[in-house]
Amino acid sequence: MTTDIRHLISQLTLEEKAALCSGLDFWHTQGIERLGIPSVMMTDGPHGLRKQAESADHLGLHNSVPATCFPSAAGLASSWNRELIRRVGEALGRECQAEDVAVLLGPGTNIKRSPLNGRNFEYFSEDPYLSSEMAANHIQGVQSQGVGTSLKHFAANNQEHRRMSTDAVIDERTLREIYLASFEGAVKQSQPWSVMCSYNRVNGEYASESETLLTRILRDEWGFEGFVVSDWGAVNERVKALQAGLELEMPSSGGIGDAKIAAAVNSGELSIETLDLAVERLLKFIFKRVENSQENIPFEPDEHHRLAREVARESMVLLKNEDSLLPLAPQGTLAIIGEFAKKPRYQGGGSSHVNPTRLDDAFAELQAVAGDAASFLYAQGYELGSDDVNENLLREARDTASKSDAAVLFLGLPDRYESEGYDRSHLSLPASHITLIGAVAEVQDNIIVVLSNGSPVEMSWIGKTKAVLEGYLGGQAFGGAVADLLFGVVSPSGKLAETFPVKLSDNPSFLNFPGEGDKVEYKEGLFVGYRYYDKKEIEPLFPFGFGLSYTEFEYSDLVLDKTSINDTETVQVTVTVKNTGSRTGQEIVQLYVSDVESSVIRPLQELKGFQKVALQPGEARGVSFTLDKRAFAYYNVQLGDWHVESGAFRIGVGASSRDIRLNASLEVASTTEIAVSFHRNTTVGDLLDNPLTAERAKKFSSIFGLESAMEDNPDMFVAMMKYMPLRAMIGFGQGKYTEADLAQDLRELNALAGAK
Amino acid sequence: MTTDIRHLISQLTLEEKAALCSGLDFWHTQGIERLGIPSVMMTDGPHGLRKQAESADHLGLHNSVPATCFPSAAGLASSWNRELIRRVGEALGRECQAEDVAVLLGPGTNIKRSPLNGRNFEYFSEDPYLSSEMAANHIQGVQSQGVGTSLKHFAANNQEHRRMSTDAVIDERTLREIYLASFEGAVKQSQPWSVMCSYNRVNGEYASESETLLTRILRDEWGFEGFVVSDWGAVNERVKALQAGLELEMPSSGGIGDAKIAAAVNSGELSIETLDLAVERLLKFIFKRVENSQENIPFEPDEHHRLAREVARESMVLLKNEDSLLPLAPQGTLAIIGEFAKKPRYQGGGSSHVNPTRLDDAFAELQAVAGDAASFLYAQGYELGSDDVNENLLREARDTASKSDAAVLFLGLPDRYESEGYDRSHLSLPASHITLIGAVAEVQDNIIVVLSNGSPVEMSWIGKTKAVLEGYLGGQAFGGAVADLLFGVVSPSGKLAETFPVKLSDNPSFLNFPGEGDKVEYKEGLFVGYRYYDKKEIEPLFPFGFGLSYTEFEYSDLVLDKTSINDTETVQVTVTVKNTGSRTGQEIVQLYVSDVESSVIRPLQELKGFQKVALQPGEARGVSFTLDKRAFAYYNVQLGDWHVESGAFRIGVGASSRDIRLNASLEVASTTEIAVSFHRNTTVGDLLDNPLTAERAKKFSSIFGLESAMEDNPDMFVAMMKYMPLRAMIGFGQGKYTEADLAQDLRELNALAGAK
Repeated sequence: MTTDIRHLISQLTLEEKAALCSGLDFWHTQGIERLGIPSVMMTDGPHGLRKQAESADHLGLHNSVPATCFPSAAGLASSWNRELIRRVGEALGRECQAEDVAVLLGPGTNIKRSPLNGRNFEYFSEDPYLSSEMAANHIQGVQSQGVGTSLKHFAANNQEHRRMSTDAVIDERTLREIYLASFEGAVKQSQPWSVMCSYNRVNGEYASESETLLTRILRDEWGFEGFVVSDWGAVNERVKALQAGLELEMPSSGGIGDAKIAAAVNSGELSIETLDLAVERLLKFIFKRVENSQENIPFEPDEHHRLAREVARESMVLLKNEDSLLPLAPQGTLAIIGEFAKKPRYQGGGSSHVNPTRLDDAFAELQAVAGDAASFLYAQGYELGSDDVNENLLREARDTASKSDAAVLFLGLPDRYESEGYDRSHLSLPASHITLIGAVAEVQDNIIVVLSNGSPVEMSWIGKTKAVLEGYLGGQAFGGAVADLLFGVVSPSGKLAETFPVKLSDNPSFLNFPGEGDKVEYKEGLFVGYRYYDKKEIEPLFPFGFGLSYTEFEYSDLVLDKTSINDTETVQVTVTVKNTGSRTGQEIVQLYVSDVESSVIRPLQELKGFQKVALQPGEARGVSFTLDKRAFAYYNVQLGDWHVESGAFRIGVGASSRDIRLNASLEVASTTEIAVSFHRNTTVGDLLDNPLTAERAKKFSSIFGLESAMEDNPDMFVAMMKYMPLRAMIGFGQGKYTEADLAQDLRELNALAGAK
Repeated sequence: MTTDIRHLISQLTLEEKAALCSGLDFWHTQGIERLGIPSVMMTDGPHGLRKQAESADHLGLHNSVPATCFPSAAGLASSWNRELIRRVGEALGRECQAEDVAVLLGPGTNIKRSPLNGRNFEYFSEDPYLSSEMAANHIQGVQSQGVGTSLKHFAANNQEHRRMSTDAVIDERTLREIYLASFEGAVKQSQPWSVMCSYNRVNGEYASESETLLTRILRDEWGFEGFVVSDWGAVNERVKALQAGLELEMPSSGGIGDAKIAAAVNSGELSIETLDLAVERLLKFIFKRVENSQENIPFEPDEHHRLAREVARESMVLLKNEDSLLPLAPQGTLAIIGEFAKKPRYQGGGSSHVNPTRLDDAFAELQAVAGDAASFLYAQGYELGSDDVNENLLREARDTASKSDAAVLFLGLPDRYESEGYDRSHLSLPASHITLIGAVAEVQDNIIVVLSNGSPVEMSWIGKTKAVLEGYLGGQAFGGAVADLLFGVVSPSGKLAETFPVKLSDNPSFLNFPGEGDKVEYKEGLFVGYRYYDKKEIEPLFPFGFGLSYTEFEYSDLVLDKTSINDTETVQVTVTVKNTGSRTGQEIVQLYVSDVESSVIRPLQELKGFQKVALQPGEARGVSFTLDKRAFAYYNVQLGDWHVESGAFRIGVGASSRDIRLNASLEVASTTEIAVSFHRNTTVGDLLDNPLTAERAKKFSSIFGLESAMEDNPDMFVAMMKYMPLRAMIGFGQGKYTEADLAQDLRELNALAGAK
């Protein structure tokens, strides 16, 4: 960096320093002209630029400059394609440069705890590994263009209901393994310029005021070097937030926050060193931006639109394809039904809402891709603005379908069903959409449903369809991508980044979502998404990692380069995947790790690797994964660190979480010793289980003649001794075993175990 | 009481006082001869007397004197018959008097959190209301004979796994509404002479050392007047336990505990007043026993056996009866298959194990009841001591069944599958039993399964049977009772006091049972038993409250005597039940209450009343229930009290939790005002929802022009304002709304709401 930040700071007045810690307005940092510190701009995102036009309101929720609208994160994650996400990031970065934007506010990597979260469309997955991989590549793409990102919303912002006041109560292990892990991987891999703290509280503390989150974990543990910005309006007490590690308050509070900071320094409540550190981080960012700014680099909208179409194709998931109805032959008569076919729902509401450079009309795109051999009919089917069934539209749809060889129904959730700001209350499609399926099914067997929605829907109606394409919120090229997939220009290659439940009540958070008053308890703990459905043996509608293709893949030759490792080593896993079908396609190869036996509660399996591989018909390719300690570890709260319990692990590789094709076994040995310390309530069984004390502990089983006394129930005797705390022998001994005996035994046992 | 306890205490030395606080041996309290204080005896129970013969070992797990073995609590509760349970208690009390026993150690009223609990057979129900009603009547019956009870195991002892050291972590509301409520009703209604504290810890504290449990809740809140005894060996630190309210340590610690108490008084750690109070409670008990002792009152074993048979009939639950196969006509040839038909499993293992006065052989009883018109064949079917399939026995069973008109299979869990001391690891029958069903089904369509087990089993095999009779652990008259039911001497009238899940993983505690190390977290919270299956919409194998009869019942005329009440009033509910079938029978009429809308998380419905009514064919009778505040209340942790949220409640009356026949609605108004106090993070929505502040709060929705700024997403605007904390307007106001404005608004709002 060419600017001498320290020198600059020495020239700043207290008031100037404080001023740098909040916005100039809704989107800009404050500049200080006399010292050449510019004001730089942040804009919403993250799957498209939402830069306020100069004439617009200060909130900027409309009138943004045209920008490419890519599929939102729910779709992006379904691609499981790191390189593709990175290219999206690069395109976004170029658009930011073209518009002189310093930071694109995103990506959002919160975990999908409940499908009801109205903002799920902006998040990647229910799985922290997949989510963090997607976020990392998004960040790397944007930042490769000299534009910053702001990874959000840190942390545990998993609902919109009372998001500005609710307290997410989460046990530490769950927080670490699920909710923070999604951020951790992204921060460590991609060093975002900024992290945005969330509105909510976490275990009693506002995220904006949590030194644990913003400093101890984010910076000290993960090595984050950037600045923390508040979600817009997330600051509660400005000084406390600054002390916790929140440098930038947004939006401007009109000088109120700045005055509080200055007053706190003057009163001694806040040290000037804390403020200087915050200012240093902010100035580093501002001048990094200055150095990376590229003027007059317009982006090419058509090129980005083509990318948006490519991305949308990979973001959609083929959920059902009975009788191989898809791909459609470009001939005959096709009924295109549903207003979404002409007025697509391609993005969500709220801060991520983009003013697109172009917008595909699915009906037109289908015609364009199919060419002249096919003829197309259209029926509106339902009214976008209402859930009510319109009998005239139903009749028209039925008539249209009856005259066709197949019917493609464009259905999904209207804007009002899901948005930033509020949650859904159920998982149904509008009644008008469901009724439409029934009406068309009366006259047409070949029904293909194309869904536009940000998060799972229940599909009580699926039996009436032959094919279902989950389109998510596919961005401005949604229509073209659907056409490409339905006619087989490319084969579908997306897989679900989240479980689709049969019904809402199957979801693990159901009993505790969205909480009581201003408290939401994450009582399902680690069991989020497939971790819950697997363990509870609940059949999902579609499992995590599931998605169909027009071709088929065969798995073979799962090989590990070692059969046992220490947890300081890595293991290389390779598997061969072959396209055994007749079409080119891409397979998402997934690797799950299971701890075969564990003394702590663990999920049955966890995603620890994935690769997307493109294969020509007949082509085979080796796919490889490297697993390190983290792939086998759980977060040990006592250690305050990740820990591997020595023993056997299963490596499962397959096509989805419920379609594991090959398994291998690996022994992993921990190199961390967990100190044991025996005490008066240590059980005899624990001593017998410990190789260091087993021999010494045998005497406890035979004292007092308990064994012969319980000879009619030997199983109970064994259990009773196993579970007996040492001190209980004082009572059962009736004088034959004393506190002094116990103290002596404990000294000897602890000496044997090497504990203090 | 004729003895002057205070005077006696004044004559006791410190060492004598301390000595009274622990046992003389395994079963007796210490006596003090010089003052005429006798030693009295306690014995295990509670569905039969287990009094150690004088010659036996000190643990007394065998060689007890003959006593009537009634069905264990799991069966007793299935009768839902308060009067019958009371009669069982009376019989038990008489047997205690005959054997000079002062206290029968029971009943056990722990909640069935998991079907895996090895001791579930000793407990009543998954529902606290049913459980406490059963316990209360049991206690009243025993104590009506001048013999004490010891209600156990207080509290949250819901597993055998690590029972002496594990810490049950339970949120306060769940503890109150589920786990403590089961004890609360029994203590308040029946004032047991004693309560037995459990082995485990509750929220970090040993139950034996919990002043909260043993003094504040049990005595101060519930008014318990008796003494607390430790479960045998449950004392951890003797002095701490005494201070918490545990008077009697059992068994004897050979003087070790006494010495600790005396030393603590001498050192000033323990006040003499605390010890005196404990001694006073113990002496009151001892002399109460002396005054109620009746010598030379032998009991009549045959009469008690007849009662055991009557009780067993009501304790069994007919789960399936396809084609009305039951009752069997006493004619033709019947195959009786399974070693349990001749060697019944009629009780569980551990402290409740009774040496029965007689023992029915089901095979013989079936012949006796059926008379000469029917002929009986027998095949062993499986080996009791092994799970392995014995092909010879299978072949013999198949042959026997093929020669018969119907086959009655006696199956269930062998002793080693469930016992005090350890938990089950799965819910299956032994493989040899399951295979037997399959083998018999190859040759015989009319299969009747009679189950002996203490807790639910999975029934993957149920499709091969026509009838299933759940016999639980039916006591010494199990065989006769089965004969009476199968041949229709009486109609089955038991209903399940617990949910039978399709599979173990459906159970609410599944993810957190039996915990990690010495900690088990009750993360399912309130959602225990049907409360969980209902809310999660999980179809159970058989729901709570379910049971078939040989006759049918019709419900009509559900009437409430008021349509609205204050929570200080009661409401009378009456319903008419009619026997519309052709046989005499008993119906268990169940009343469930639902809070139609609640600001706190609540179960969909909760059992708040039940009546068992006997009806001749064609007979109708009115059944009535009185509901008070508690029927509508939840435990409000903030208030530290039960609280009714004003509004509508649904009263559902029916034949099971999933067979509600009639509904009525009631308005209940709370007379308790919960103080509100607004603060900087109070949301605008909460102010708008409060009638006292709604008008005043309207101004917040229109400031800063947010509405027009978000005109393209009005739903989000509404949500954003609703969830906006007042302090956030300082940030969004950008200077137009200050901390001073906020302070002023809060003063005004709190004044409006009448809060301080």
